[in-house]
Amino acid sequence: MSAKVGVIMGSKSDWETMKLACDVLDELEIPYEKKVVSAHRTPDLMFEYAETAADRGLKVIIAGAGGAAHLPGMVASKTILPVIGVPVQSRALNGLDSLLSIVQMPGGIPVATVAIGSAGATNAGLLAAQILGAFDSQLQGRVQARRDRIQREVLESSDTL
Amino acid sequence: MSAKVGVIMGSKSDWETMKLACDVLDELEIPYEKKVVSAHRTPDLMFEYAETAADRGLKVIIAGAGGAAHLPGMVASKTILPVIGVPVQSRALNGLDSLLSIVQMPGGIPVATVAIGSAGATNAGLLAAQILGAFDSQLQGRVQARRDRIQREVLESSDTL
Amino acid sequence: MSAKVGVIMGSKSDWETMKLACDVLDELEIPYEKKVVSAHRTPDLMFEYAETAADRGLKVIIAGAGGAAHLPGMVASKTILPVIGVPVQSRALNGLDSLLSIVQMPGGIPVATVAIGSAGATNAGLLAAQILGAFDSQLQGRVQARRDRIQREVLESSDTL
Amino acid sequence: MSAKVGVIMGSKSDWETMKLACDVLDELEIPYEKKVVSAHRTPDLMFEYAETAADRGLKVIIAGAGGAAHLPGMVASKTILPVIGVPVQSRALNGLDSLLSIVQMPGGIPVATVAIGSAGATNAGLLAAQILGAFDSQLQGRVQARRDRIQREVLESSDTL
Amino acid sequence: MSAKVGVIMGSKSDWETMKLACDVLDELEIPYEKKVVSAHRTPDLMFEYAETAADRGLKVIIAGAGGAAHLPGMVASKTILPVIGVPVQSRALNGLDSLLSIVQMPGGIPVATVAIGSAGATNAGLLAAQILGAFDSQLQGRVQARRDRIQREVLESSDTL
Amino acid sequence: MSAKVGVIMGSKSDWETMKLACDVLDELEIPYEKKVVSAHRTPDLMFEYAETAADRGLKVIIAGAGGAAHLPGMVASKTILPVIGVPVQSRALNGLDSLLSIVQMPGGIPVATVAIGSAGATNAGLLAAQILGAFDSQLQGRVQARRDRIQREVLESSDTL
Amino acid sequence: MSAKVGVIMGSKSDWETMKLACDVLDELEIPYEKKVVSAHRTPDLMFEYAETAADRGLKVIIAGAGGAAHLPGMVASKTILPVIGVPVQSRALNGLDSLLSIVQMPGGIPVATVAIGSAGATNAGLLAAQILGAFDSQLQGRVQARRDRIQREVLESSDTL
Amino acid sequence: MSAKVGVIMGSKSDWETMKLACDVLDELEIPYEKKVVSAHRTPDLMFEYAETAADRGLKVIIAGAGGAAHLPGMVASKTILPVIGVPVQSRALNGLDSLLSIVQMPGGIPVATVAIGSAGATNAGLLAAQILGAFDSQLQGRVQARRDRIQREVLESSDTL
Repeated sequence: MSAKVGVIMGSKSDWETMKLACDVLDELEIPYEKKVVSAHRTPDLMFEYAETAADRGLKVIIAGAGGAAHLPGMVASKTILPVIGVPVQSRALNGLDSLLSIVQMPGGIPVATVAIGSAGATNAGLLAAQILGAFDSQLQGRVQARRDRIQREVLESSDTL
Repeated sequence: MSAKVGVIMGSKSDWETMKLACDVLDELEIPYEKKVVSAHRTPDLMFEYAETAADRGLKVIIAGAGGAAHLPGMVASKTILPVIGVPVQSRALNGLDSLLSIVQMPGGIPVATVAIGSAGATNAGLLAAQILGAFDSQLQGRVQARRDRIQREVLESSDTL
Repeated sequence: MSAKVGVIMGSKSDWETMKLACDVLDELEIPYEKKVVSAHRTPDLMFEYAETAADRGLKVIIAGAGGAAHLPGMVASKTILPVIGVPVQSRALNGLDSLLSIVQMPGGIPVATVAIGSAGATNAGLLAAQILGAFDSQLQGRVQARRDRIQREVLESSDTL
Repeated sequence: MSAKVGVIMGSKSDWETMKLACDVLDELEIPYEKKVVSAHRTPDLMFEYAETAADRGLKVIIAGAGGAAHLPGMVASKTILPVIGVPVQSRALNGLDSLLSIVQMPGGIPVATVAIGSAGATNAGLLAAQILGAFDSQLQGRVQARRDRIQREVLESSDTL
Repeated sequence: MSAKVGVIMGSKSDWETMKLACDVLDELEIPYEKKVVSAHRTPDLMFEYAETAADRGLKVIIAGAGGAAHLPGMVASKTILPVIGVPVQSRALNGLDSLLSIVQMPGGIPVATVAIGSAGATNAGLLAAQILGAFDSQLQGRVQARRDRIQREVLESSDTL
Repeated sequence: MSAKVGVIMGSKSDWETMKLACDVLDELEIPYEKKVVSAHRTPDLMFEYAETAADRGLKVIIAGAGGAAHLPGMVASKTILPVIGVPVQSRALNGLDSLLSIVQMPGGIPVATVAIGSAGATNAGLLAAQILGAFDSQLQGRVQARRDRIQREVLESSDTL
Repeated sequence: MSAKVGVIMGSKSDWETMKLACDVLDELEIPYEKKVVSAHRTPDLMFEYAETAADRGLKVIIAGAGGAAHLPGMVASKTILPVIGVPVQSRALNGLDSLLSIVQMPGGIPVATVAIGSAGATNAGLLAAQILGAFDSQLQGRVQARRDRIQREVLESSDTL
Repeated sequence: MSAKVGVIMGSKSDWETMKLACDVLDELEIPYEKKVVSAHRTPDLMFEYAETAADRGLKVIIAGAGGAAHLPGMVASKTILPVIGVPVQSRALNGLDSLLSIVQMPGGIPVATVAIGSAGATNAGLLAAQILGAFDSQLQGRVQARRDRIQREVLESSDTL
């Protein structure tokens, strides 16, 4: 089945974080593709990727980047698809720079921003699933089942304090 | 036509900001409903709103709040629909508190966060449109047309410097 | 004796911090209960916990959470009891997000916020003791005795510089 | 009836903010006293105030200050009563300095910190009421009634969007 | 004489700030061109502008933008010319977001970042002049003369305290 | 010879930092005393220490503390001597809370604040020496000699790059 | 009588703030001189000023500057006298940049930093007075009298709440 | 061939970072000199270095410093050459102090600021190369070749996810 979600990241070093988004997509049986696409080092590839995304059948793009994180916003400027931005934790400023560079988009081009680092990457996968799930009740069921399972785990964890 | 998007806000004072999201939805002919739902002052209403949202036919929820902005995240915990969070600019900390309270969600429950204040509200409307548009080519066309128009305005504005 | 203080936390990983609150309650012979209650992963449990807290005889609730820390504020919205919020130190932003998410509550629903991390958890236990102690002179005596002991320790520590 | 709550502030200029705490106490019929007590300009008065507070029958102290806001923490070090700290919005740093100076207390001496500025002052009054209310069911009823009224106002405000 | 410096900005509303860069270029008799080029609303124009800049004879590009300010970094990724980034003061976060989005570029693609707002725009003009002046002693003389004049003004201002 | 400088700190754990101030005083042959004095845990000792400092012959007080660091400001409020405040690096907020709690004193009671952590402690010793040295040319000579030595070390270090 | 304190500032626009330091010196009858000395626009004057300060009889230098505020630290590097730094409130970052640029000096060259803006300027005057007063009991008496007066004003202000 | 770029740093401990700038200059065959020059500990050397830089044939100066980082701005005030400032990551505040001290220069004296830490040092070398390259097509070719190589590396890295 062709990819519904594109997962891209600004550098191979972002993979450690972005893998968590892919783990969720795998778990929820959502077909996806993954790729290193750097806003600053491969700008033409980035534009081409974004321009062709909708025609290739993608419905959502997840883009992770750190520091002056321009990838999510620039991809969003070149596609009509919803783009989810993951602020990768940066070295000096702990991802505050990544977060502000991604979330503070001007009116006109939104980026759906999630939390800094691992939690954000996991949630990017889930957000993509919830977007797709709004139009696919079977997938929505799988997302709900995942939530139910995690709820049970929280309830049980209380006994081990 | 029944509402596809629910626009909620923590306080009537957020309306000045959140109206911009509704303006975009009006402009793009997306049916929506709007309501004041306070996480802290009407918690039961909030839960009921979130729990019934999917069954009432909503596909996306836009929630705006300021300060310790718990509305988007709590609504997200009670619905399987994608939730867009708008950090309303707060008085003392200029919305940095709103932003962090909304975006830094733990793994498991994502909130699609947009920019602080007016630009964020406009983009919340557009993000909802892009999500719906991924499954509605006519709407997608209207979003694209809006982008094309704004692009022309930017190009023309250059002549007036 | 039935619990006077409820100690809850958003995740089992918060226990390392929140244990310090329980240590103080143990030391001061205040009966308490402890539980993992996640705002986002077990929202219904959270509401039920908060709604029944006063009737179960609790006088104070201590709630610890990190990141977009909604637990203290949401519990506070569902109980008339005083709620003490402990901002657990988060990974990327060192608990600044936790602090702002807990302390910046809108007018109407207060959360008694303490310091980020370990010092805050200890102080949450002490604050609960001081609240109860204002109406229980024996307990107040034990709190005072603890302060006197710590004062002596500080005075003695000076000799070892 | 003798004062149950002491409301103090570091400077007369804090009155504009702290008045909101007194308004809540008035509304809930809680007897209180109010005074300007400066940590830095009247340190002896501050110590005397704190030392005699419990004996004078106070049950809770509300202390507001801005900038290097030492009043709440220093009063807390000299009384066994619960102390609520209100970070007054400062000129240059918008109250972030006030907040950190009040909330980041070391283990041993807690200050129950509320939000920066007006919302915090209102909530300081409410928190004092909830503390007293945990041992006074009539007062608790009045606090609950205030909440119910505000909830109705929120619900009604939705119709005016 | 053909333009040596290109002054671009993300929005017409940035002109109030960026005009100061142009004022310096005018004063120092440096030929320049100016244009509104939005990273997010006119991405193709941005790429084309950057790609053709060197061939059109430009030696330096000055790019101003606010919020998630991607214009300077993206232009830098598409030209081998030195790019000076001006963080325009943003509404909610006062330009801290603009600054971090511009300065925190990953290794490989530098942006020469100047101060937030008006001072930065003036300095962008001067920095361009100093870069050109390193290879044009007449221009360098004019920059030095401007410095000498300002030094005299500072010295004289002291008498009016 | 009786102590000219009093070095105090809020906790024994601050000694690791504050030792650097004492090292400078030792090196410059300035007699001093050192003591743990906690604003919050030994408030009466703190007031007594500050009140008697001038009469005991002290000329300068160096006070180090972390978090809600009230020691320097409170000592300053109780003595007419110049007080130097050292913000000790805190765990969660890296000393930003310590810095703001110390430096943002209201008009009327100054604290001479130095840098966060080790550099600040060293500089507190030097600042005390420079204050004393302004009225003691022999000491001033020793401070100058120390500067000259460090300058030579910097010059020599360049050869080892 | 020759000046004991030198008051310098980086720009004439800093005078509005720095005047408050001079007001205190006037009030306490401390002879001083005042001058605009810009680190960046008159660097040679700055060095000359600092180098000759001790020989001209100055005992303390007060230096105010905003933004990348290098004046206090650079003057400190060129004189053995104690230097007090006043962070002038800057436009975009409200003086946080000024504060960090002044206070975060490396080990070796201290700057006695006071609060951002007006309160800091007043306190710079007082700190200079307290330094001089440690060696001049008459001046110390005047500083004490000023404190006593202000204390009375605070006590009286309480009656007007 | 005589040095075209001067690389200076405030302390030998900055070499670990600043070496990355030199590595780029080596790789691109740009002759340079390197030196420890401390604004605060060797101020006269700093002024002499800056004053003679242009006459010695330098075209660009790269200056790295941390904390209250005054070196880049002060060098810029004493030379007409373009100065690139590298904010070295500081211990307590992770380089935010370094960044603001370098970038927030007042109108009149620009510093071309790059990112905090390693990425910034690498980019300082590249920015110097791009400035020189604007007037040296062979060098510009080598910079472009380096970019092309890095682009290929990014493209290839995608296959190893």
